[in-house]
Amino acid sequence: MKLCRFTVQDRAPRYGIIEGDEVAAAVGDLAAGFTTTSERYALAAVRLLAPATPSKVIAVGLNYLSHLGDQPPLRDPGLFFKPPSATVGPDETILLPRDAGRVDYEGELVAVIGRTARDVPEESALDHVFGFTCGNDISAREWQKNDLQWWRAKGTDTFGPMGPWIVTGLDPRSLELWVRVNGELVQHTTTDLMINSVARIVAFAARRMTLLPGDVIYTGTPGEPRQAHPGETCEVEISGIGVLHNNTAWEDEGE
Amino acid sequence: MKLCRFTVQDRAPRYGIIEGDEVAAAVGDLAAGFTTTSERYALAAVRLLAPATPSKVIAVGLNYLSHLGDQPPLRDPGLFFKPPSATVGPDETILLPRDAGRVDYEGELVAVIGRTARDVPEESALDHVFGFTCGNDISAREWQKNDLQWWRAKGTDTFGPMGPWIVTGLDPRSLELWVRVNGELVQHTTTDLMINSVARIVAFAARRMTLLPGDVIYTGTPGEPRQAHPGETCEVEISGIGVLHNNTAWEDEGE
Repeated sequence: MKLCRFTVQDRAPRYGIIEGDEVAAAVGDLAAGFTTTSERYALAAVRLLAPATPSKVIAVGLNYLSHLGDQPPLRDPGLFFKPPSATVGPDETILLPRDAGRVDYEGELVAVIGRTARDVPEESALDHVFGFTCGNDISAREWQKNDLQWWRAKGTDTFGPMGPWIVTGLDPRSLELWVRVNGELVQHTTTDLMINSVARIVAFAARRMTLLPGDVIYTGTPGEPRQAHPGETCEVEISGIGVLHNNTAWEDEGE
Repeated sequence: MKLCRFTVQDRAPRYGIIEGDEVAAAVGDLAAGFTTTSERYALAAVRLLAPATPSKVIAVGLNYLSHLGDQPPLRDPGLFFKPPSATVGPDETILLPRDAGRVDYEGELVAVIGRTARDVPEESALDHVFGFTCGNDISAREWQKNDLQWWRAKGTDTFGPMGPWIVTGLDPRSLELWVRVNGELVQHTTTDLMINSVARIVAFAARRMTLLPGDVIYTGTPGEPRQAHPGETCEVEISGIGVLHNNTAWEDEGE
């Protein structure tokens, strides 16, 4: 199933199931599931929104060997938070602060929680995941290096693109991820190369925090991220999911 | 005005205005304001809940000289996030993980956002604050020291006590704060000693992130925090607000 959130003619956001080139409006929620209604729209006629409305956005640092550089692997998953206010959807503009210095794209597989999780074993952790989407963990390197914590390095408004929709039934160990900037391939991996699997990350996070339906987990980026510049387009593509597309602008020149 | 959230006879949570020893059920929201209804309860007959339901919980590290120890003051406010899932209300139990090592109480003044704030000048930043409450920024020191970021050090379930209610019309530079453990005074300050004022913190956070009604900011703790032990009671009292009271237990022996 491909689940999206969408708006049409500026009406209130709602869930939809994508079937071919149509969206069927749906009722339900991530925990209980969804039922389609008879209301249908051409996919090209709706505006897709970030597909989840998380109460918290968890992310994992240093989760691919190819991204570690000189750093040693962590003993446990290196979690951190992005604020929900940083979330933007497909085709929304990533806004670069003038005073941030270098800002990078980081394409990532994002897990969306479907069933409340607290103290779940790794073996059944994926039962609490509704599905997966594409994410871009936008990162301001100077703030990341110099601030006490990463709040603005990772949490500035628009630094959390996510979408275009959530796909269920995927095996998160068997996906392929590509990041393209202006069409040029800049990051590429298969998700079996994650140091901590999605199941391990979910179980580790849920050992300390209650994960709620709609909460999302950015699962780490591979390789060497590319610096973002105004006027670029960045695409994060994951096999079996689709392409998350966002443009980039200076914060005082964007939408 | 003293605004609380409460439940009575296990019904849905709602806002209330405290008048003397009574709670008047209220309708409204933080942005638009509240109107009392004719429905009233004895304060002793209701269960008070955390007085806000934040979309994000911001906190400030190292904001009193008395808390710095050997560390130099930061150039800018040292912000970080606690997840909303860590929030508990008055009289809820703080649960200590068996494997966390030292966990401390940190009594703090908490600002509650009332009007959306993004790019607001320091001079008018307090216009976006609805009011103030007491908070306890529970902190696991080994995780804080050793983890990549402070997600579980500050974000474990029950590590965000807040309450007992929000008081409006206070000057956040003229308050007095006391923390007592089993009745013994362990932290004490006046809030004029903050390195970064509430107005500066709000303006600094809102330079990068949209602050939404109900978002809260823990404004830092003074002095040397006291280690928490199971079986204790911790009280955070702030002049003009009241007392936030919580008990402490091992995570596998609490409620």
